Amino acid sequence: MNSKFLDDVTHVKSSSKTLPERVADQIRQLIIDRHMENGDQLPNEFELAQQLNVSRGSVREAVKLLVARNVLELRRGKGTFIADNTGVVDDPFGFAYLEDEPRLANELMDIRRQLEPWIAAKAAEQANDQDIAELRVLQYKVEELIQSGQDHLAADQQLHIRIADCTDNRVLRELVPVITYSVHLFGNLTQRRLRQETIDTHAAVVDAIAAHDPEAAREAMQEHLKHNRLSLTGASE
Amino acid sequence: MNSKFLDDVTHVKSSSKTLPERVADQIRQLIIDRHMENGDQLPNEFELAQQLNVSRGSVREAVKLLVARNVLELRRGKGTFIADNTGVVDDPFGFAYLEDEPRLANELMDIRRQLEPWIAAKAAEQANDQDIAELRVLQYKVEELIQSGQDHLAADQQLHIRIADCTDNRVLRELVPVITYSVHLFGNLTQRRLRQETIDTHAAVVDAIAAHDPEAAREAMQEHLKHNRLSLTGASE
Repeated sequence: MNSKFLDDVTHVKSSSKTLPERVADQIRQLIIDRHMENGDQLPNEFELAQQLNVSRGSVREAVKLLVARNVLELRRGKGTFIADNTGVVDDPFGFAYLEDEPRLANELMDIRRQLEPWIAAKAAEQANDQDIAELRVLQYKVEELIQSGQDHLAADQQLHIRIADCTDNRVLRELVPVITYSVHLFGNLTQRRLRQETIDTHAAVVDAIAAHDPEAAREAMQEHLKHNRLSLTGASE
Repeated sequence: MNSKFLDDVTHVKSSSKTLPERVADQIRQLIIDRHMENGDQLPNEFELAQQLNVSRGSVREAVKLLVARNVLELRRGKGTFIADNTGVVDDPFGFAYLEDEPRLANELMDIRRQLEPWIAAKAAEQANDQDIAELRVLQYKVEELIQSGQDHLAADQQLHIRIADCTDNRVLRELVPVITYSVHLFGNLTQRRLRQETIDTHAAVVDAIAAHDPEAAREAMQEHLKHNRLSLTGASE
């Protein structure tokens, strides 16, 4: 650890990139320089090879790398396009490879308790009528799924993500899907009391956002995540 | 947006994965099931093709995808290994593709002001002697670079990341490198006063962690990020 640590401090990470990786960097730069956006079409393989002065094979490999990173997407018979949510990957922190799921659930919940009350307050300040209508749809959807005994976790996560979408912070909108990964780790909750609390505290959060009351939204989200935390503790007992 | 929104709510994302993507999923599962870790060697192409009952070409394409996602790494002449920081990618939220850098810097700084004072407090509780010694090295390194008029931003980011490494929260250790991406966006600061404040407030943060004083660490980090914020505002004026 120690020598690696000092290496990291003193040197920039040595660049041992392969040719396709370097070509991928050039394509990335081209996307940025030309302000290309979601859905824009990339020049074809032949044009790119000419422009970047590399072989078509290198371009093809580079495009594969960028597809794997969700920078580009291939549309069959149509060509190569800039992907939706350019460069945003699923599970960017490799949670699937971490050992000890209950520990991960607690680590994520600690971060959520720091961020989400603040996010709810921002949402209360910034949500418009369309936002609020969509939050209600999700709130009722979660409630309905819980009442009918179905799995509500995906819809629950959607509600939390949609609250972050009410803010004008683009990073939060990417971050909340990641930190609510833990929602899936709460899957064992079967106690009726906790499910009712989820319904009630979700309602309080959405009510406060709809009333544009940041302090109430912050407190309601704190209360909501406190219940989640208790239930997590209960689950590992 | 509206119909897409309702689609997202009602359906799980439809799985239109290519064969290499499906094989990549199988390899991912194999890594998880066998508890393979950083540096472990993957079975070779031939063995994997047999085990997964697919062609060697599909395995090769899947391995390329997983290398692009930093799940695997190729070592020339040695084989395929589980990568360091398995599955953690650079710039996972695609910041490089976002328009409006000053806005991004503010978005990241807002999040840092929510999280980093809390992280500093956790570090003060949990740092051991080795941690504190390494924080001092980085603190002095940043100071030395500033004093000698060199670029201190990479070392500055290292210090913030190392503080997160003092905590026992694995997610924070991945998250702080991402949210301190903004450090590079503060590159234009040349005012002597702000550089002196960076030196002083860094020292206060590390002193508080070394003294295992969570409240002092929290306040020192708040103060440090307040200065950063002011300088950012100044820079965009």
